[in-house]
This record gives sequence, C-alpha cells and structure tokens, in this order.
Amino acid sequence: MNIVLLSGGSGKRLWPLSNDIRSKQFIKLFRREDGSYESMVQRVYRQIRQVDREATVTIATSRTQVSAIHNQLGTEVGISIEPCRRDTFPAIALACAYLHDVRGLDLQEAAVICPVDPYVDSDYFEALGRLGCLAETGEANLALMGIRPTYPSEKYGYIIPEDDREISLVRTFKEKPDLETAKTYMELGALWNGGVFACRIGYILDRAYEQTGLRDYHDLFARYETLKKISFDYAVVEREPKIQVMRFDGGWKDLGTWNTLTEEMSEPVIGQGIRDESCENVSIINELNIPVLCMGLKNVIVSAGPDGILVSDREKSSYIKPYVDEIRQQVMFAEKSWGSFTILDLEERSLTIRVTLNPGHSMNYHSHDHRDEVWTVVSGSGTAVIDGERRPVAPGDILRMPAGCRHMITADTELKLIEVQMGHEISVHDKHKYPLPEASQIG
Amino acid sequence: MNIVLLSGGSGKRLWPLSNDIRSKQFIKLFRREDGSYESMVQRVYRQIRQVDREATVTIATSRTQVSAIHNQLGTEVGISIEPCRRDTFPAIALACAYLHDVRGLDLQEAAVICPVDPYVDSDYFEALGRLGCLAETGEANLALMGIRPTYPSEKYGYIIPEDDREISLVRTFKEKPDLETAKTYMELGALWNGGVFACRIGYILDRAYEQTGLRDYHDLFARYETLKKISFDYAVVEREPKIQVMRFDGGWKDLGTWNTLTEEMSEPVIGQGIRDESCENVSIINELNIPVLCMGLKNVIVSAGPDGILVSDREKSSYIKPYVDEIRQQVMFAEKSWGSFTILDLEERSLTIRVTLNPGHSMNYHSHDHRDEVWTVVSGSGTAVIDGERRPVAPGDILRMPAGCRHMITADTELKLIEVQMGHEISVHDKHKYPLPEASQIG
Repeated sequence: MNIVLLSGGSGKRLWPLSNDIRSKQFIKLFRREDGSYESMVQRVYRQIRQVDREATVTIATSRTQVSAIHNQLGTEVGISIEPCRRDTFPAIALACAYLHDVRGLDLQEAAVICPVDPYVDSDYFEALGRLGCLAETGEANLALMGIRPTYPSEKYGYIIPEDDREISLVRTFKEKPDLETAKTYMELGALWNGGVFACRIGYILDRAYEQTGLRDYHDLFARYETLKKISFDYAVVEREPKIQVMRFDGGWKDLGTWNTLTEEMSEPVIGQGIRDESCENVSIINELNIPVLCMGLKNVIVSAGPDGILVSDREKSSYIKPYVDEIRQQVMFAEKSWGSFTILDLEERSLTIRVTLNPGHSMNYHSHDHRDEVWTVVSGSGTAVIDGERRPVAPGDILRMPAGCRHMITADTELKLIEVQMGHEISVHDKHKYPLPEASQIG
Repeated sequence: MNIVLLSGGSGKRLWPLSNDIRSKQFIKLFRREDGSYESMVQRVYRQIRQVDREATVTIATSRTQVSAIHNQLGTEVGISIEPCRRDTFPAIALACAYLHDVRGLDLQEAAVICPVDPYVDSDYFEALGRLGCLAETGEANLALMGIRPTYPSEKYGYIIPEDDREISLVRTFKEKPDLETAKTYMELGALWNGGVFACRIGYILDRAYEQTGLRDYHDLFARYETLKKISFDYAVVEREPKIQVMRFDGGWKDLGTWNTLTEEMSEPVIGQGIRDESCENVSIINELNIPVLCMGLKNVIVSAGPDGILVSDREKSSYIKPYVDEIRQQVMFAEKSWGSFTILDLEERSLTIRVTLNPGHSMNYHSHDHRDEVWTVVSGSGTAVIDGERRPVAPGDILRMPAGCRHMITADTELKLIEVQMGHEISVHDKHKYPLPEASQIG
C-alpha cells in the first residue's frame, strides 16, 4: 500500500496546544499501552505499520511541520514538502509526482490519499488497502471511501451511491446539508465523504499535466507558488464521470475540535489536574507543570499549555477559531527536528528559553546579528562548537555567544540547557546558518 | 488613631494567587485611579492614611509576611511579629505591648484592632477613629463595632445590643446562626460582629498579665511559644461584663473567597483574558503572561498564577481549601523585602528563577552548600559582592557561584536576573547568611 497522508492546517481549533507551527496532529493525547502518550500522527503511523509493514507512507505537508514529523516518526517516513499552501489538488499532484520521481513508484500503482487525523481502528487501514487494490483493478479511475453515517451530521459532504452494494458507482455528491436534509440522505443510503480516495499515480499526473502543464516533481516543486489554489474535489472529482465508492462500516471520527477530541481520550485528565466531586463531564489537558483545579463545572474542557489557557463549554469549543485569530502572540513552544524549546520568560529586552536536544541530534550551526546569548547546561552531555572551536559540555557549563558568534551543540544524551537571549531586537528571523567547519565535524 | 491590623492566615482560600507565604491580602487586585493595581493591605493602609495622616498603624503578623509588607507598604509601618501562631488573644496582647514598650504609647491611649482585609470605604476608618475615642472616654472597657446586616448571613456572629441607639451596651453575643435564626436576629436589630473593637492599651496588658503572668513586650515575645492558643473572644470578650457597641451603617465586606472578592473587582478581567459573547458572569484573574480564553461559561471564576490554575463555579469556590491542602507543591512565586522571584522551570537537578530586585534593595549575603548558581543579568544595574569582591553588574553580565561561594547583589535601578540553580538537593533550607564584609559595604 502507498499511502499519502495530507497533513495541513495551522490547527487553531485546538489552541492552546496547537499553534501556527504545531498542528493538532502532533499533540500527544492518546495513551499507549505502556502508559506513555502518542499524537494523532504517531497513532496513525503506528496503525498503518501494524496493518501493512511494507506500506510506503508519505506525508504531504508544509516545511513548518517537517521538524515535528521527524521528531515524532523518525526519518524513514517520506515527506512531500509543499513550498507554500496551494489547496489539495496541487498538494496531491506534488505528492504523487514525489512518489513516482523520487520514490520510483510505477505510474500504474495506486496511491491512497487520506487526511492525517482520522481517529480510527486498524480495520480502517485494512479498508484503505482494499481501496488501493480497487483503484488498480477496478473499472473506474477514482475509488472513494464512503463512511456509513452514524447520525445525520451537518459537518460532512455526502456521497449518494447508485446502489447499496459494498462497492458501487457514485450517483452524485452532496454538499454539507442541514439536519433535515441529512436525515433524508441517510434514508437514501448516502455515505459521508471523509476525503479518502485512491487512484493510480499516473491518473493524478495526467490531471496535473492537463491543468498545469507540469507533471515532473522538480518542475511542480519549483513552480509550486505559481499554481492555482484549487481543491481536489473541484479539480478532479467533479469532472470525473465514473467514480467508484467503497463502503466503510467501521469506527471513524474526525477529531477536529476539543469536543470531539476529548470524547476519545481514554482518561478525562492528562497532566496535573484535579476535579472536585461536583464536576460532571469535565476534561483537563494540561501541558504546564502547575496543577489545574476544577470545581463545580459541567461539560467543560480545560486545556493549558505554554501558549495559553482555554476554558470552554464543550459545544462552544468548536467556535474557537475567530477568538484565537485575535490572539497575536509569540509561539511559546515548538518541536524541532533536534528536540524542542519552551519560552520560560519574556522581558522587554530578554527572552529565556528551555532547550531540549534529543540524543544524537544537533541544532544548526548559526549566529545572530542583534542578540547575545548565554547557555547554561543543566542536564545531559554533548559537544558544542563555538566560532569553530569544539568543546565537550556537561551540566554547569556556561557558554557565552555575543552577537555574530557562530554556535551549535550536539547532544550525546538528552541535553537540556537554559538559553538567555539579550538584545533590543529579539526575533526568530535574526538567524544566519552556516555549514559546520571541517575541522569541527562531530561524530 | 492607633490601629492594629490583624494579618493572619495562609490564604489557601484564594489559591492559586495566595499560597503558604503569600496571603490573600497581598494580591494586587484592586484598580487604583492611575490604572495600576493595589492589594487589600495597600488599599486599607492608603485609606487609613487618607482619613488620619497621623495614625499609628501596626500590623500584627507572622515573620513570613514581613517581606511582603515592607515591599508593599515601605518600612514606616509598624510590624508586631508573632514568633509563631497562637490565636488572636496572644497576638493582640503582643501588639499592644509593642505599642507601649516599643512605640512608647501611653497605657491610657486606645488601640483599634481590626482585620487587615475588610473591603470598605473611608467612612469605615472614620468610624474606627470614633471607636477609639469611645474606648478612651466611654463608660465600658471594650468598644465593639457592630455592622448593620444587609442580609441574614450565616457566616457571621451577631451582637445583640440593649437598645437601638448609635452607641449602646451589648446585651449578648450570638454564634453564627442558621438562616431562620439570622432573620430573627435581624428583626431584633442585631449587628454583625466583624471582629473590630477598641480598648485602652493598659486594659489589654492587664488581661495579658492576668492570664499569662506577662505584660512586657520582650517577655511576651520571648515566651510566645509557651502561651496558650486562645481567641480574644474567649479570653476577654466573654468575660467582660460591660461592653459598648457602636453601630456602623456603611459598606463592609469580608473578601475571603474568590466569590466575594471578584464581586468587588471593578473589572471582570485582570491580566490577559478573553471571554466570548456567550459567557455570563465570568471573572478572569490571570497573573501569568499567557492569555486565558473562556467560552460559553456561566458563573465561573478563572484564576491563574505561577502556582496553578483554578476554574471554579462561583458558589463552589468557597469550598476550595481541602483540595488545595492536597496539592503539595513548591511555592512558585514569592514577594521578598528586596523584590520578588518567580520559578520559571523545575527540572530534576536544576531550577530556573527570575529574580527582580527593587531599586536600592539588596538580597542577603549568603551561600549554599549543595548547589551551584549562575546569574545572567537581563536588565537594570547594580553591584554584586562575590566572595568579598565587589563588582558592578549590567545586562549581559554572567556571575557563577559554585557551592560555598558567598554572594549578594544590590540594585541601583530595578534589576532582573535569571538564576539557574544546579545540584542534587535543591532546597530553600540550604542557605547560610553572613554579614557583608566591611571592605565590600555598599552605599
């Protein structure tokens, strides 16, 4: 199975735990059997691997997510990087070109395209395998998955099939309906359109060529910014006369809001949280290292992280986006390919950060024009390079990097340091990267 | 007027903004005319000064509050330090001995004793002045203030006066009643007992001598721990046959819980807070520098500070204490006589703190046995003394203090530094204080 996971979105709907650079799919909310937590993307990746050890998994995403993907899934997973946001058709075309030109897949092979964030069981991924086979061997160019509705939802588009067999042709598509219409659709045997489909790679590249004049990965990548923003539905699905739909009857849930997400959490409290006896249906998700105490609340979600604190009625939590859009703030936490950082303190002319480097990882060799930095290593060991000079580092070591000084650090074990940045203009954009000098190569 | 403010309590009822060392009376919640905020103790002290510029104000409290009092009120205010907690009679006896022996007041002068945290207007302090005069000139040994009830409260004791004149003799006292009884008391013209009274200093010292054999300040202070825990009501009021009560008809409120406190806040949001349109009767008090977003809540209080986050139904917030008792945690914020500190990060073998020194203030000259410390000065200027050597400090300066190193810093302007503590055993008890060596005296 070749699966392309569409990983988009700035994830404001799950603020404060998601932010501009940390999308909801990377928040660790699901308890593993060993008691640790995994994110949506880790859960999906693990489930795919359990169903098909040989699956080619490619994540179609923006550059900002690459660090988090590598941090959470390792480096084996394929990533098709969209140079900018251009809606689903260009993203899928680029990912399919990547599968053919970079990963060497045959044009006749099928790719299964699905969102990265469905909350499902392994039967879903088994169904994706069958959907891929259907796309390679079936009578239609496109094979869609139709999810059997469990209630008359107003949130999803509907697929009306020709008949009620497991696989049938699509009669028509319907936009998100109102409640009454949704009930009628359900009576007609309509299925939810979860944005999951399969087709041959060559089919997508033909569509790409028709619409953009490009089909080669490097061309698509280089000229990505010039491509028209258009969804796959408009660009392909609506123009395709013959589409098959495969029914899926298993559990499927779109965890796009705090309300739907917390319903699937195995425990009501993650992190430090206390609920008094009068609390009813209260979920606490707390990434801060201070306790949350809830008293006398009903149907409330409390979510606390370095970016902020949300206290919301369950139903209302779906309407969070415009409020979060109003909050202009520094990103206080980010996962990077080498580890993570959390902003601890923001003053007028200084910024204090806790930096955690994962074992064996290095940050880039870099300098800043407008700020001095001080590192105090508090745990772990590794090697720093400061203006070309290597030195081992251990807890208690202090490194001073005035503006202009080139610096980096590599962790042998997990390494934590407190970084104090000082200057009149502290900005993430004040950064120059350099190759590491030969003489100071590490490892 | 000689006024003694009783400042007790660990203030767990206003967690997370109050904690073991920061009582509720020091939280800055009340907006001044200039837009800044003042605490209960600052508000009361300002009100007393407005009514009587010459008033002698003494705060009877424990040692843990001295730093915060000096920080908020300056050093002019009198402080009677209780060496340990021994209930109100020993505290009042010690404070009156302090007024006589340390401040030199005559035994015939009256002291007005009242809690530090009533929420009142200046007419209350004008009434306290009259209460003091009544104690000096009236026919009874004790003059109580009786607050005219505004509703049949079950929270207060009641005073039943002999008649309904402004000043009358007390017929009897009643314990906190149930609702029906409270209604009956109100019909009888009963008054709330707010724990406010006046009497001659000599009268208190006579009672102290009768019950403890001591009346001298230094004796009471030295043997304070041996004194019996007994309330002023039991020790004095109940044994006194002739007590006058003066009616007070003005506004008076006991702000002991989040519910009563937030009702008196002039704005519903202090700090960074957003409430969506569907919120009703929601208060946000946020001392963190990240935003709180509330959606769809009714009658809820959100309070966030370095020690934790409370989300509570208004009514339920009165029952917070047992839950807070369960939370065993490091104090994350404290006011000191020289400024304040906030814990930014707690790791297994390190602690990162932001220290703020007020202009002209110094921390103690001290050392630690079991931890190394690093200071990075991020703003302001001052002078440090490290193992006897003076050096000026400015932003960007780094000072390294290994275990055993004696150190202190004096601020010229407000000075902020990031302190990283590192060691296997990091404890507030690991501290030795020293006199500053002659050669390095500052100022």
